[in-house]
Amino acid sequence: MAKEITSRSENYSQWYNDLVVKADLAENSAVRGCMVIKPYGYAIWEKMQAELDRMFKETGHVNAYFPLFIPKSFFSKEASHVEGFAKECAVVTHYRLKNDPDGKGVIVDPDAKLEEELIVRPTSETIIWHTYKNWIQSWRDLPILINQWANVVRWEMRTRLFLRTAEFLWQEGHTAHATQAEAIEETFKMVNVYANFAEQFMALPVIKGHKSENERFAGALDTLCIEALMQDGKALQAGTSHFLGQNFAKAFDVQFANKEGKLEHVWATSWGVSTRLMGALIMAHSDDNGLVLPPKLAPFQVVIVPIYKSMEQLAEISAKVDAIIPLLKAKGISVKFDDNDAKKPGWKFAEYELKGVPVRLALGPRDIENGTVEVARRDNLSKEVVQLDGIENYVEALLEKIQQTIFNKALAFREEKTTKADTWEEFKDLLTNKGGFISAHWDGTPETEQKIKEETKATIRCIPLDAVEEEGKCIYSGKPSGRRVLFAVAY
Amino acid sequence: MAKEITSRSENYSQWYNDLVVKADLAENSAVRGCMVIKPYGYAIWEKMQAELDRMFKETGHVNAYFPLFIPKSFFSKEASHVEGFAKECAVVTHYRLKNDPDGKGVIVDPDAKLEEELIVRPTSETIIWHTYKNWIQSWRDLPILINQWANVVRWEMRTRLFLRTAEFLWQEGHTAHATQAEAIEETFKMVNVYANFAEQFMALPVIKGHKSENERFAGALDTLCIEALMQDGKALQAGTSHFLGQNFAKAFDVQFANKEGKLEHVWATSWGVSTRLMGALIMAHSDDNGLVLPPKLAPFQVVIVPIYKSMEQLAEISAKVDAIIPLLKAKGISVKFDDNDAKKPGWKFAEYELKGVPVRLALGPRDIENGTVEVARRDNLSKEVVQLDGIENYVEALLEKIQQTIFNKALAFREEKTTKADTWEEFKDLLTNKGGFISAHWDGTPETEQKIKEETKATIRCIPLDAVEEEGKCIYSGKPSGRRVLFAVAY
Repeated sequence: MAKEITSRSENYSQWYNDLVVKADLAENSAVRGCMVIKPYGYAIWEKMQAELDRMFKETGHVNAYFPLFIPKSFFSKEASHVEGFAKECAVVTHYRLKNDPDGKGVIVDPDAKLEEELIVRPTSETIIWHTYKNWIQSWRDLPILINQWANVVRWEMRTRLFLRTAEFLWQEGHTAHATQAEAIEETFKMVNVYANFAEQFMALPVIKGHKSENERFAGALDTLCIEALMQDGKALQAGTSHFLGQNFAKAFDVQFANKEGKLEHVWATSWGVSTRLMGALIMAHSDDNGLVLPPKLAPFQVVIVPIYKSMEQLAEISAKVDAIIPLLKAKGISVKFDDNDAKKPGWKFAEYELKGVPVRLALGPRDIENGTVEVARRDNLSKEVVQLDGIENYVEALLEKIQQTIFNKALAFREEKTTKADTWEEFKDLLTNKGGFISAHWDGTPETEQKIKEETKATIRCIPLDAVEEEGKCIYSGKPSGRRVLFAVAY
Repeated sequence: MAKEITSRSENYSQWYNDLVVKADLAENSAVRGCMVIKPYGYAIWEKMQAELDRMFKETGHVNAYFPLFIPKSFFSKEASHVEGFAKECAVVTHYRLKNDPDGKGVIVDPDAKLEEELIVRPTSETIIWHTYKNWIQSWRDLPILINQWANVVRWEMRTRLFLRTAEFLWQEGHTAHATQAEAIEETFKMVNVYANFAEQFMALPVIKGHKSENERFAGALDTLCIEALMQDGKALQAGTSHFLGQNFAKAFDVQFANKEGKLEHVWATSWGVSTRLMGALIMAHSDDNGLVLPPKLAPFQVVIVPIYKSMEQLAEISAKVDAIIPLLKAKGISVKFDDNDAKKPGWKFAEYELKGVPVRLALGPRDIENGTVEVARRDNLSKEVVQLDGIENYVEALLEKIQQTIFNKALAFREEKTTKADTWEEFKDLLTNKGGFISAHWDGTPETEQKIKEETKATIRCIPLDAVEEEGKCIYSGKPSGRRVLFAVAY
């Protein structure tokens, strides 16, 4: 089964597509650019959602739900937002079908034309700030700390499963504050939540930073992001947190009476992560045999495969397994016992390797005799035979170790692939021959960034939060620069 | 605050609308027929989702996600489905906006017209069965037991918050089976899951039954439903489970090789409940003071209000409360301590009554002296003073009692409002003067049902699963009938 996956060295992009499809994560649908998220893929997304939702609530946020549709006119209200956003999107113009008079199926009823077209939300700032106007009168109504889990649509021309799809699932936080300082604090708080989630659950090391002006969200004064490195040396933006200033409050006329009774415009943030995280998770850790999943996000963490010739042997093994499973579950470990007699152990081994199940336990007649079990790790494909007695403690510790090992491996890879460049030649050479993040000086102008992008496809992924103040010269223009920024070719 | 709610006797419909808005559950949005679900309302929906999702998984189902859009042509494939469904829906015709050449905002780009229009899903049978075609080859691929949590859009002309909105949130299960018997078993299994959820969590007694042909889902051979009675004597359909036969498999050409290698069409079910359940929950239990929530679905079950004059007293009370809260939480009880100094206790009492918090604890200086606490029940508005020591056990038992009491009250109401009618005059008299469910004989024809509906607005809510075989005469036509069915005017 695993043989059907293209290897990474042969064609990384094809490897990714093969993996997503063969591991039953997602597939393309009948609708251009829209995907079907299959049960195994959705189970991973549900685990991500559950952890993120918990983290949002622990930081004081509540969930709500706003309409799928946004009146077209709303997009014109915030000038830079319309420039950056409202163009490639799905437009609803009619609200009824009718039978084709020719008897050939259904047609759009021309009499059912909407007075104003509705846009399927590409993001919800406009409809939410229109709503907040009625919710906010006084400083007592602030802050509003709301998150929404929703689907959004952006009519992308070139789509790829999870990474860039016309419809995708995401969460979008939209907060309203009385002061600039509080809104900025929220922006940082949420990028930290995203970074913690990526590192602790996805085992994905990320760099937190500011976006340059070119890469900023349409309507934001500052965009913070987390950037991760994939195995092909390309960067992937995994989450963003925007300080929106008073732009949307002004566009939608949202003012509050402060403690002195004076009217002020409200300060805003928005922040989001999407099913794109699935793409990051897959690309960061997996190998030519299939998925490698961090234990904390695996739909099941342990699979038990019986090795037997007779049904008698299977019965003996099953009895042992029935005793082990409750011990594992009591430790919060999710486990599947695959005693399907229609499939051979070899097929099962390949299948669960492909699916990225972190730990495989194999039990044969000799194990039953010896009181042992074969434990295989998916991350490094190592195997060892251990005592069955106390296996739950062994597996518990092993899952933690695997989680950490996957993270460490990705971190070591990123560190190896992060290089300083001090000249334009060096910069181009690194991009061509090494890839990864390039730490280089930049003169701070959008024009220079644009030229670098045109010549090399590399963009500024972020100005790291922990960037060191350092005198230098822009690798492109030679003009002075106060700190290095991170460049990369990105997804 | 509660005074702003219209009383039920004055205007039931207005009472409902007032309640939904004043209790911060939902409000109308800028988009016709689409609602904003506010955080307090969404928190209840999240609790419903969590329980239902658990029940679906316990019965072997997994979640997945299918596209929001469905190609128009898909609706023509299943003849009765298109008749019943594909008409009033949102149609996407374009995929791009552009700047208005006149400089006035944005317009739809006429060059970006879709070749085939896309319909925003009103339900997903068609896109899902199109997908299943590729997933199903052999009996080994069956059953498929998938559920989806999603938003759907039906362009309703008259909308009401939660009860009937253009966009609503729901879950839709879509299962595929090798045999008719298995599909029918699934249909019954899921209507039972819905009934258990309604009764055990919503404290809402429901009647399980078959829909008559007129009320059946478009494309189904049989529709099972749960029907509940609201306080105004009108019925509300709270969930449906459809046996679809091989209709969709035939429409989308989904066949499997059976164990003998012969091709057969797949058998299907679909089942769903929606945010309409929120409407049912609100209308079934609440009163003129506000919401009454069953403890199992309340966003928080207990609110603690301090009664104090000095900050010293508040400190003393807070110390006690800080000791109680962990005891309550350890029992899985959710609790809020409202020590907001800007609001008076009277305001808080009214506010939490309006919000339907099941139990209120009030603590004053005398309570601190005496080691007591005032416990108020939201459901019957009774109060008593009890010992603070062991309050967690008292509250735990009380919450269970409240859950049961709310259910019993609704059940007694329904029983009182379920009446047999044996003549047409009796039938009409009951509808005018009593309302509720009317158990009556019917000749089994759609024509008679249609005439009854035209003359009285009453429809057959269901043919109860537990209907007794009984010879009788149709109240309208006088023709023979083998069992009574339940009529009511419905939401």
